[in-house]
Amino acid sequence: MTEAHLIKTAIVGASGYSGEELVHLLLKHPHAELTAITSRRYAGLTLAQVFPKFASLPHARELKFSEPNPDLVAQKATVAFLALPHGVSSEMAVPLLEKGCRVIDLSADFRLKSAAVYKEFYGHDHPSPHLLAQSVYGLPEIYRGKITQAALVASPGCYPTSILLPVIPLLRARLIQPSTIIADSLSGVSGAGRKAELDYLFVECHESMRPYGLPKHRHLSEIEQELSLAADQTVVIQFTPHLIPVNRGILSTIYLTPASPLEDDESRGRYLAQVTEYFHMAYDGEPFVRVLDGKALPDTKNVVGTNVLEFAWRLDPRTGRLIVMSAVDNIVKGASGQAVQSYNLMFGFPETAGLL
Amino acid sequence: MTEAHLIKTAIVGASGYSGEELVHLLLKHPHAELTAITSRRYAGLTLAQVFPKFASLPHARELKFSEPNPDLVAQKATVAFLALPHGVSSEMAVPLLEKGCRVIDLSADFRLKSAAVYKEFYGHDHPSPHLLAQSVYGLPEIYRGKITQAALVASPGCYPTSILLPVIPLLRARLIQPSTIIADSLSGVSGAGRKAELDYLFVECHESMRPYGLPKHRHLSEIEQELSLAADQTVVIQFTPHLIPVNRGILSTIYLTPASPLEDDESRGRYLAQVTEYFHMAYDGEPFVRVLDGKALPDTKNVVGTNVLEFAWRLDPRTGRLIVMSAVDNIVKGASGQAVQSYNLMFGFPETAGLL
Amino acid sequence: MTEAHLIKTAIVGASGYSGEELVHLLLKHPHAELTAITSRRYAGLTLAQVFPKFASLPHARELKFSEPNPDLVAQKATVAFLALPHGVSSEMAVPLLEKGCRVIDLSADFRLKSAAVYKEFYGHDHPSPHLLAQSVYGLPEIYRGKITQAALVASPGCYPTSILLPVIPLLRARLIQPSTIIADSLSGVSGAGRKAELDYLFVECHESMRPYGLPKHRHLSEIEQELSLAADQTVVIQFTPHLIPVNRGILSTIYLTPASPLEDDESRGRYLAQVTEYFHMAYDGEPFVRVLDGKALPDTKNVVGTNVLEFAWRLDPRTGRLIVMSAVDNIVKGASGQAVQSYNLMFGFPETAGLL
Amino acid sequence: MTEAHLIKTAIVGASGYSGEELVHLLLKHPHAELTAITSRRYAGLTLAQVFPKFASLPHARELKFSEPNPDLVAQKATVAFLALPHGVSSEMAVPLLEKGCRVIDLSADFRLKSAAVYKEFYGHDHPSPHLLAQSVYGLPEIYRGKITQAALVASPGCYPTSILLPVIPLLRARLIQPSTIIADSLSGVSGAGRKAELDYLFVECHESMRPYGLPKHRHLSEIEQELSLAADQTVVIQFTPHLIPVNRGILSTIYLTPASPLEDDESRGRYLAQVTEYFHMAYDGEPFVRVLDGKALPDTKNVVGTNVLEFAWRLDPRTGRLIVMSAVDNIVKGASGQAVQSYNLMFGFPETAGLL
Repeated sequence: MTEAHLIKTAIVGASGYSGEELVHLLLKHPHAELTAITSRRYAGLTLAQVFPKFASLPHARELKFSEPNPDLVAQKATVAFLALPHGVSSEMAVPLLEKGCRVIDLSADFRLKSAAVYKEFYGHDHPSPHLLAQSVYGLPEIYRGKITQAALVASPGCYPTSILLPVIPLLRARLIQPSTIIADSLSGVSGAGRKAELDYLFVECHESMRPYGLPKHRHLSEIEQELSLAADQTVVIQFTPHLIPVNRGILSTIYLTPASPLEDDESRGRYLAQVTEYFHMAYDGEPFVRVLDGKALPDTKNVVGTNVLEFAWRLDPRTGRLIVMSAVDNIVKGASGQAVQSYNLMFGFPETAGLL
Repeated sequence: MTEAHLIKTAIVGASGYSGEELVHLLLKHPHAELTAITSRRYAGLTLAQVFPKFASLPHARELKFSEPNPDLVAQKATVAFLALPHGVSSEMAVPLLEKGCRVIDLSADFRLKSAAVYKEFYGHDHPSPHLLAQSVYGLPEIYRGKITQAALVASPGCYPTSILLPVIPLLRARLIQPSTIIADSLSGVSGAGRKAELDYLFVECHESMRPYGLPKHRHLSEIEQELSLAADQTVVIQFTPHLIPVNRGILSTIYLTPASPLEDDESRGRYLAQVTEYFHMAYDGEPFVRVLDGKALPDTKNVVGTNVLEFAWRLDPRTGRLIVMSAVDNIVKGASGQAVQSYNLMFGFPETAGLL
Repeated sequence: MTEAHLIKTAIVGASGYSGEELVHLLLKHPHAELTAITSRRYAGLTLAQVFPKFASLPHARELKFSEPNPDLVAQKATVAFLALPHGVSSEMAVPLLEKGCRVIDLSADFRLKSAAVYKEFYGHDHPSPHLLAQSVYGLPEIYRGKITQAALVASPGCYPTSILLPVIPLLRARLIQPSTIIADSLSGVSGAGRKAELDYLFVECHESMRPYGLPKHRHLSEIEQELSLAADQTVVIQFTPHLIPVNRGILSTIYLTPASPLEDDESRGRYLAQVTEYFHMAYDGEPFVRVLDGKALPDTKNVVGTNVLEFAWRLDPRTGRLIVMSAVDNIVKGASGQAVQSYNLMFGFPETAGLL
Repeated sequence: MTEAHLIKTAIVGASGYSGEELVHLLLKHPHAELTAITSRRYAGLTLAQVFPKFASLPHARELKFSEPNPDLVAQKATVAFLALPHGVSSEMAVPLLEKGCRVIDLSADFRLKSAAVYKEFYGHDHPSPHLLAQSVYGLPEIYRGKITQAALVASPGCYPTSILLPVIPLLRARLIQPSTIIADSLSGVSGAGRKAELDYLFVECHESMRPYGLPKHRHLSEIEQELSLAADQTVVIQFTPHLIPVNRGILSTIYLTPASPLEDDESRGRYLAQVTEYFHMAYDGEPFVRVLDGKALPDTKNVVGTNVLEFAWRLDPRTGRLIVMSAVDNIVKGASGQAVQSYNLMFGFPETAGLL
């Protein structure tokens, strides 16, 4: 593929942790040409000045942050990644789409199909509800076909990714009760974003483990939307996020109830075999989902820095519950890596391009 | 109180993390005289040589580790703390008790009332089942009176402490269904003990979050025993421990179902008021339990280095579940501090002596 | 000692890390009554609300933060600890001293004897140069007598403490050349203070090691002042601080040249014996200095949470240099604990009161 | 390049941290075919079983660890990386070389030119001194030409890499006195290797900073050999390593004395200009050395996970010293990445192949 075939690509909001990872992935991407990166804070500085760690990569000394001007972005790029706060993202997406620029949005602005649910969870009217029908939820393992055609991809949140991928196949196969799902999730501190707040200082986090944001974390809205679609009925779940002193990673432990009671070892054995079969049917061949059978349990250190989600499961004969545990890098498969996976689909590249 | 009134006290197995914390607490304890510390590995060395950090405390340069000989211990001490692996502890406790030495055991050996349950969870016959009836489960907030009189106290495990204290009042008050309890717990790495294994190396833990030991962790046996006593019926729970890169601390997030469904805001309000009332009834005046009402959520950094357990709770109107979250230092309130609390009760000292 | 004998004590600026540790130490201090704590940010809130971890200590639910008003502080307290930024501290110290309140200042405002040096290092005129002659540098092992009588104690910085205590005896004994001292120091992140800046976010520090503030860090001024006094000549040193991802602790590695060359094993042996002798003469009997002879090397984990500085030394026969290594908790012996040590001296308490 | 052109490559000792990183780098390398990986501990297991994090890479489920048999290795591979303990490495290198297999050794066995120095620092006779003349010290920026032709490359240690690259140009240009070099270095815990020892447990390292191995660390021997070659005279340096709680990274702060005294601002300005010029002459165009001029100081977080060494320098007008600070990933540029850099040179690939 010659230079002429490189896709002119922009990153709007390139100074947060997801933006930084997008820069990292796209600078190395074989088919991307990074033509614009924006940041209010760093406008005018080069990539190398803001992120010394990229200084040895090609273009890092020339590429400059600019103000997030949609005209400029649309002029320079065929596609733009938006790594902006929710609410702000929409303001950028609308003009970009109007100017024919495809958009991969990492915020929550276009993940929900219902403007009412958006208002319930985000506390204000949706700024551009007319786009909700058009946007595609960017979970490639579930919506691969639609992503390929999409002008606007709403890339999923990190917690949702860790919960949806292992649970959707079970709901689709009617193997679990949709009404009793509990997801207990642990997140590294990069999940809080790159913002100067006391709560996220090193000293405040280093020997700390704490729950937060319960019982109605905003991510619930998209999790429940997608689980409801998979179950073909309204699903309401329990979700508790926790902040843990690692840089990266999400670990979700998900408590599930089999669709019908399992009375004896034989029925439990049959059930487990079904679960295993459905998981393999869903994910064998998927490059970024690792189905752990055997004795291994997930560990975030096995996925950090990669676009892979790994998960395992156990059936507890004492309680009858199925426990599914998943691990993911919140910034890669939980954000920027997954967005690049959509990008690869949108432009007809191999899905793993730049991600292995 | 003159020196003559100091209690001659031994620590058997003083080189692990719990043993080390016992040394720390008892060296500073106003009524304790540390007359013997044992360790196979360090026999012959002084406390100051093995733990330089204690070198500036009184006696650290004279006090020597000796072999764990029960005759010697019984001769030197009125009471012995045992910080030994399960199975080993029993071998030491039997001769000590026979010689009239009171015993506070930090292992699992005497926590269970049933030798059969012990065998089920620990994989071998109980070595001294005749002592099970006599031992007292050393959770002072629950068994204060019995501990005062006990010759043998079985100090609770760290996970059990974090789960039992917030759940027992709810079970006693019949406020929750006993059959649907899920406890999702996070532990610092000191919980794995001071042993040279690859899994607990710095590099293997530092950017890692991982579940382990499910679905049938050994601590389940004592948790279920005590919850069953509180509920007056057999209780089986779900329990998932996780290893988290902090030195100390346990955070338990516990999912509970109210005893009867709560249909509207009013019934939820009444229920919450009851929960709050029962928690305050149970723990107001307790020096080592912090009931967090208001907006605060538990954080292990608020309890590390102290003998305090703190907990908070939320009722989720969307799912109807009650979520209780507790934080505790696994080595202090979850082990050595709680053992000293029992010691204070056994010898008539103020319960907070040496613990504030 | 009855309640009537408690010293009414204030902490001005009680919400930073040093202020928080002062609260911790003074709440437990047998002879202190904490009558005022101030914080602009938290005025009106109780101690328990701001620092949940203190909520179980006596008075934490009643003691309220107030605005830093000198009239009020002087009215309520006999002595005030100032844990304020440099420059701000002086504004508070002046009125407090005028009203007869003794002051222990943890800032840099009164550490230097020369207003000119202050201006050189801090970039502005000293706000109250008339107090410089009167203030006592609060390093108890060096200035014990003067501290006892002082109305104004300037408690040393954390880096200076780690460097001065091991080096002063060598300079006084003329065992090293004063002109070739190099101090390479590592600090935990609490040394940067409790302020919301990107550089000190968990994610920015967690897998980071970095030098900063060289070649002319402000602490140099007080280090050189005190070394010059010990050497009886002007001493200029090399000093490089580094930021390391631990919560607490300073480790200083100090490179020294013996006063005269050591040509053979015998002269090296004699020299080492002298060094050892002088260190023991200086610090045997000091409760808060641990002279590590034998094989042990300092480790911050042995001093964190204590008021102890520990140090060791090695003579390198290949280069002829003497290397001294010291470890200290930057917030305790490097700040608040050392300030309480001065407080004990000022009020005639045992020097270790509240510090063991 | 077709599959037929892939170089058959073995890793002997693939289960330690350097071995693991070699696996990681070579699995992704465009011109390498990993045909053998050995490990006594894991012989018979697949790569995916031992390192779940590689399970999603091609071949990880088929590639099996074998016993470290030189016949087998030589049969399967054209070149072997040895990531073995010193002493053991030599036993493997000798037969491999005899069978015509090229060797890139990551141990210390072939780094020294003098068997006598080896014995002095490693405590036993060199097992195969006849190979010392033939081996090439694998620092590509210094020995690029020789590496290209080498049958046996001795890849440098991590500390040496961090010190040699910034100091050699200064010695060659006669800009510093060779006799007064002090290197104060900080290493992440992976530097201690993947071995189950108490000292490297998470809890023993997490809130710890400590010097070790002074004053005569083994790495001194190769550092001094190479500095002596650059200076054209015998160089003896001061070197103090420290263990710091990060997974990866080395930060070296190096204290240097200019070749002649700098009396005034003008001479200092000229000197600094010379230093800057020589650094740029040495490293402009080098893909893996980042010369930080401007205000930036090195930070290990900017190099971790990359093959880049970055360094900066300051001249202190108060002391006349030049301070150079460098940061490197101890496992990549300090070990496995640098070894792959040599590999690229040896086989005529672009030097950056598989390393960007």
